[in-house]
Amino acid sequence: MNTTPTPAARTLADPDTPFAVIDVHKSLRNIERLQTRADRLGVTLRPHTKTAKSLDVTALLHHDSTCPVTVSTLAEAEAFADGGYTDITYAVGIDPHKLPRVISLLRRGVTLRILLDSTEQATSVTQASRQAALPIPTQIEIDCDGHRGGLKPDNPDLTEIGRILHGAGCLDGVLTHAGESYFAYSAHEQHLAAENERDTAVAAAERLRAAGLPVTTVSVGSTPTAHAAEDLTGVTELRAGNYVFFDLVMAGLGVCQVDDLALSVVVTVIGHRPEYGWIVTDGGWMAMSRDRGTAAQAQDQGYGLVTDLTGHPIPNLVMTAASQEHGTLTARNGAGLPDLPIGTRLRILPNHACATAAQHHGYHVVDSAQDADPASAPVIQALWPRITGW
Amino acid sequence: MNTTPTPAARTLADPDTPFAVIDVHKSLRNIERLQTRADRLGVTLRPHTKTAKSLDVTALLHHDSTCPVTVSTLAEAEAFADGGYTDITYAVGIDPHKLPRVISLLRRGVTLRILLDSTEQATSVTQASRQAALPIPTQIEIDCDGHRGGLKPDNPDLTEIGRILHGAGCLDGVLTHAGESYFAYSAHEQHLAAENERDTAVAAAERLRAAGLPVTTVSVGSTPTAHAAEDLTGVTELRAGNYVFFDLVMAGLGVCQVDDLALSVVVTVIGHRPEYGWIVTDGGWMAMSRDRGTAAQAQDQGYGLVTDLTGHPIPNLVMTAASQEHGTLTARNGAGLPDLPIGTRLRILPNHACATAAQHHGYHVVDSAQDADPASAPVIQALWPRITGW
Repeated sequence: MNTTPTPAARTLADPDTPFAVIDVHKSLRNIERLQTRADRLGVTLRPHTKTAKSLDVTALLHHDSTCPVTVSTLAEAEAFADGGYTDITYAVGIDPHKLPRVISLLRRGVTLRILLDSTEQATSVTQASRQAALPIPTQIEIDCDGHRGGLKPDNPDLTEIGRILHGAGCLDGVLTHAGESYFAYSAHEQHLAAENERDTAVAAAERLRAAGLPVTTVSVGSTPTAHAAEDLTGVTELRAGNYVFFDLVMAGLGVCQVDDLALSVVVTVIGHRPEYGWIVTDGGWMAMSRDRGTAAQAQDQGYGLVTDLTGHPIPNLVMTAASQEHGTLTARNGAGLPDLPIGTRLRILPNHACATAAQHHGYHVVDSAQDADPASAPVIQALWPRITGW
Repeated sequence: MNTTPTPAARTLADPDTPFAVIDVHKSLRNIERLQTRADRLGVTLRPHTKTAKSLDVTALLHHDSTCPVTVSTLAEAEAFADGGYTDITYAVGIDPHKLPRVISLLRRGVTLRILLDSTEQATSVTQASRQAALPIPTQIEIDCDGHRGGLKPDNPDLTEIGRILHGAGCLDGVLTHAGESYFAYSAHEQHLAAENERDTAVAAAERLRAAGLPVTTVSVGSTPTAHAAEDLTGVTELRAGNYVFFDLVMAGLGVCQVDDLALSVVVTVIGHRPEYGWIVTDGGWMAMSRDRGTAAQAQDQGYGLVTDLTGHPIPNLVMTAASQEHGTLTARNGAGLPDLPIGTRLRILPNHACATAAQHHGYHVVDSAQDADPASAPVIQALWPRITGW
């Protein structure tokens, strides 16, 4: 926690709302849980920084030393390189136009691995590598569940791409992401998704090896499968991002409990519409995002669940509608609306931590293990900036 | 256009994707259209800066001089005050905690009007006004269509709030917003929404006047009703924000044509999944937002329609899915997928301009009236920053 709050912003009662909060106690608990699993499974954990986009949050993972990371933008890669991180995987299929920034990072001594799934991209990468006299370590994206990019392991392009990359010293390995595990609604389905993710990645690696091509990295991961995997034989590393905060989508899948959610947004009651059963707040979609990830789940959580300022849930109160700077809270299950006067501060637990965090420039950091008094506003321990842009 | 682009970013082919673009030619056309209407209706146009959040965009309205504006955050109010604007309405119900910033702006000589709809807020505002020895000009929010905040004109609190405010010299007038007009799917329904918006605001003003309370401002507006109103007798000003860019939601309502959309996001093709009928781009929800505003319309436009880099629509190509940094384009109406090789740049027209713009730090500005050559990438005329945060 390297940023001192200003004296004017000592507790969550002080800054003007809305603003984002991290409960570092919950975040550390989530981090320890997955690290313990990765250690037991014998794989390197390569956290995905796309959720928090924060050097400070990632520093929680290894007690302020660096670690391998996954990034979703070159802006993240550059910021983590500036922070001393030297082992970075950029896990979005490469646009050849971005290769000059990749090469700049490699020249700085960062091992930046990139991703692709076509012979066209492989040709661009090997040409750029040869021109720069610097092999760009490259992974081939494997499709394990029809989620978005990648090749099926039996696609003939796999070994062709492998040969193109290997010819320029660029072949590092394979990477897959079980994106459909976000729709695996039981522990059994999540376990099967994890098995399939592993099997598919290992099959692709074996196919390349059978063609005489060296495969160093076999990378898998998503937050649900990372928590469901029981055997990662053949896999070298595990990626997950969302777990540092968790969210209502993950709670809806049973990957975590609502009590594990480390990210929330502080809002203020600015109105009442008793004739409609509404409490109106100053936190709309600009503060929460438009993400409605729980709409597809058995329990739709609207735009988020409501807690008091200390983080204790207010039963049956849900943020059900959002304008740009207005949130509407309603009661469900026949509950009455609680008495929350104008000026009352609340916290909203988000559907999708990655999307909600992206609406903010940074985080106000509290520690619920230190703030046990439910009558007091939690103390702000630090202000942590976010990496933004591309 | 006061910002010179760097030599490295001369056309839309140059900056790394994704990034947001404004076509200033279309924006100026949209601005002129509504200004002409407002002049004809005999009302002041008070544009809402919440869509563009840009001093440069607002400067287009009055040939670089200032004008009355509406804002959605105090950060916008402060930025516009810094830019020399002195007539600002903050159109979100006031959180009393924010009054010190309101008073600071008033002390700077800015006429900052605030909004409220409860006796509690009115009491807080008049107390703060008396303490500061500075009346805070305040409008009472009127509910014309059950959209979110405000009082119905026949609510007894209306005159009570009016008396509280008037007693401290704070009563400025009434304000309403026909938010439900976004669901008025015909010109006739939009016309009725505009009539109702006017009638409700004027009725509230008359009710206050009948109680002996002075009403100066009678403010109405939303982008659909602003374009549908034919008679604004009794109204003093018209607010609208979205119209400077327009978007697919407005096109779906018939308020504009797709050709009027001034905001788009430039993305790059990074993959092909012919087995699924997908083209994959590097523009996901981080670039477009999670807004799916057209999902409720007759023609669902997914996450947006696709044009080539010069802005010409590619028929039947739609962005139908989004991960954080991946977009999926698919063909509809039985059309085949166009041949768009890796590295091809495209523009995505958004569902909701306010939400998409909010995902970006600023805008690359082009002028389609000057870029008539469909074979050339549009020239970047300027880089315009956005106001962010609260």
